Amino acid sequence: MHTDLVAALDIGGTKIAGALVDGHGRIQARTQRATPARQDGETVMQAVEQVLGDLAASPLWGRASVLGIGSAGPVDTSAGTVSPVNVPGWRGFPLVERVRAATGGLPVELIGDGVAITAAEHWQGAARGHDNALCMVVSTGVGGGLVLGGRLHPGPTGNAGHIGHISVDLDGEPCPCGARGCVEGLASGPNIARRALADGWLPGPDGDTSAAAVADAARRGDPVAVASFERAAQALAAGIAATATLVEIDIAVIGGGVGKAGDVLFAPLRKALADYATLSFVQRLTVVPAQMGTDAGLVGAAAAALALRPDTTAAGV
Amino acid sequence: MHTDLVAALDIGGTKIAGALVDGHGRIQARTQRATPARQDGETVMQAVEQVLGDLAASPLWGRASVLGIGSAGPVDTSAGTVSPVNVPGWRGFPLVERVRAATGGLPVELIGDGVAITAAEHWQGAARGHDNALCMVVSTGVGGGLVLGGRLHPGPTGNAGHIGHISVDLDGEPCPCGARGCVEGLASGPNIARRALADGWLPGPDGDTSAAAVADAARRGDPVAVASFERAAQALAAGIAATATLVEIDIAVIGGGVGKAGDVLFAPLRKALADYATLSFVQRLTVVPAQMGTDAGLVGAAAAALALRPDTTAAGV
Repeated sequence: MHTDLVAALDIGGTKIAGALVDGHGRIQARTQRATPARQDGETVMQAVEQVLGDLAASPLWGRASVLGIGSAGPVDTSAGTVSPVNVPGWRGFPLVERVRAATGGLPVELIGDGVAITAAEHWQGAARGHDNALCMVVSTGVGGGLVLGGRLHPGPTGNAGHIGHISVDLDGEPCPCGARGCVEGLASGPNIARRALADGWLPGPDGDTSAAAVADAARRGDPVAVASFERAAQALAAGIAATATLVEIDIAVIGGGVGKAGDVLFAPLRKALADYATLSFVQRLTVVPAQMGTDAGLVGAAAAALALRPDTTAAGV
Repeated sequence: MHTDLVAALDIGGTKIAGALVDGHGRIQARTQRATPARQDGETVMQAVEQVLGDLAASPLWGRASVLGIGSAGPVDTSAGTVSPVNVPGWRGFPLVERVRAATGGLPVELIGDGVAITAAEHWQGAARGHDNALCMVVSTGVGGGLVLGGRLHPGPTGNAGHIGHISVDLDGEPCPCGARGCVEGLASGPNIARRALADGWLPGPDGDTSAAAVADAARRGDPVAVASFERAAQALAAGIAATATLVEIDIAVIGGGVGKAGDVLFAPLRKALADYATLSFVQRLTVVPAQMGTDAGLVGAAAAALALRPDTTAAGV
């Protein structure tokens, strides 16, 4: 029998998705369950097992030879454990071992969710063909992952690329992570909205105070809304430039809800990038929107499972 | 004949050093010339050829099978060219080709000077045994390099690890590089001294206004001198924490003149690192002084020549 598919799990604080993915990154079967995020760890694991049960019920299941997991972090790939911030019942939870057991011994690869979307963009999306890339999600939080030298760089514990929590303003506002002036505190969707409201932006009659509503107002020329996106763009530019200066990337890919804001974000971002990415070897750095959709986490988990396993390659699937 | 030695060049704005280095990182022959930094490019190249001539006159020369160059940056290892900021006669200068020709065809490997000291610390110094490390020089400028996954990470053009020019203060003072709030602008020796003087520090009767003099004053408890080192330490901590958060390093090694300041630097640095390196996977990060001396650039150029060549290993030399 062909083993030409990869099983994938995408585990977040809201939902647990599962899929069977083919060698071109196409999803051939898909399922999801709500994450019982506020319940105990075994209850959360039962939801994972239900997702795996859904997949195993597919006639395609027998064609999957490896399983990739992208999980909300922090993760510890060296230990095979996860401690998602928004799933308090899981602290050092042995997810790899439990999933392996639940699948009757399938080889399992675990990565963080930022690394997963990076694997997806590198395999089938905007970072395809780039050997050195930063891929980001700018949404409720700010996460990311790195491709270095043509390969995914998860780092020893699977958390590399955590650009949301580097400080670009060392005297700035305290961040829930404990540091100050983190990129996330300046550039996430809720912080774009919070800053606009604090600076006098008035939401429309529908009362929508989301970052998407601020983006709409910015598109109509509201100066406070424009300024809030410019500040987010400046922080993202400083963080992206720092990454390029440290590890030499030539493209930054931005996904997530804020990444969908279009020119309201990308025009000031490209301008600010020229201000911060100044050394000769980073001046050709480009920044583009993500191409993968909401299933990026699943596709990336599948890609990473392939990329991280020395005995298989994407081309060989 | 044994080819158990490596030739090395360390090219800076002040001197051009050359050496023959053995498989344990020991220098078996050494020479240097002043860099005619303000003269035309061919004159600078003549000084390099003199250094190579000195080495070739050694009875050990025949035992060298490869040559490594560590050069002040920016470099472009993909093109084999260098454009050292302090050597205006060299802009896109084809150093690799010229050195290869001058040595009768010896294989040549080029890296930036920050990458070179990193190679040295990883091979024989404070980063030995660490698979993921940042090594820095904090001196007139601030430079660095990275070891990732057990291997030197020079990046596609040999400039990776340029921590001196990442912004940790996005609204901060303009840097000569064109950005704002760079680590170098807050933490280099001249900037430590400048800030102390601006804040009212009075030099001693010898009139010494160097960072070393500020360090002496800080050791005697001068509060302005202490504060200037604390600010430098804060900026270094933010930059080191950003690096760890982006690529997962577990040790940062600090050399250069400011790195020799001892507890005046390292005590506030370790304290500040706890403030900025907050995520679980970076909390075990340690910061230590460099172990390699002034010949780190030569030893590192030799190490990199070995590490970057797939057909040899340090152990095999």
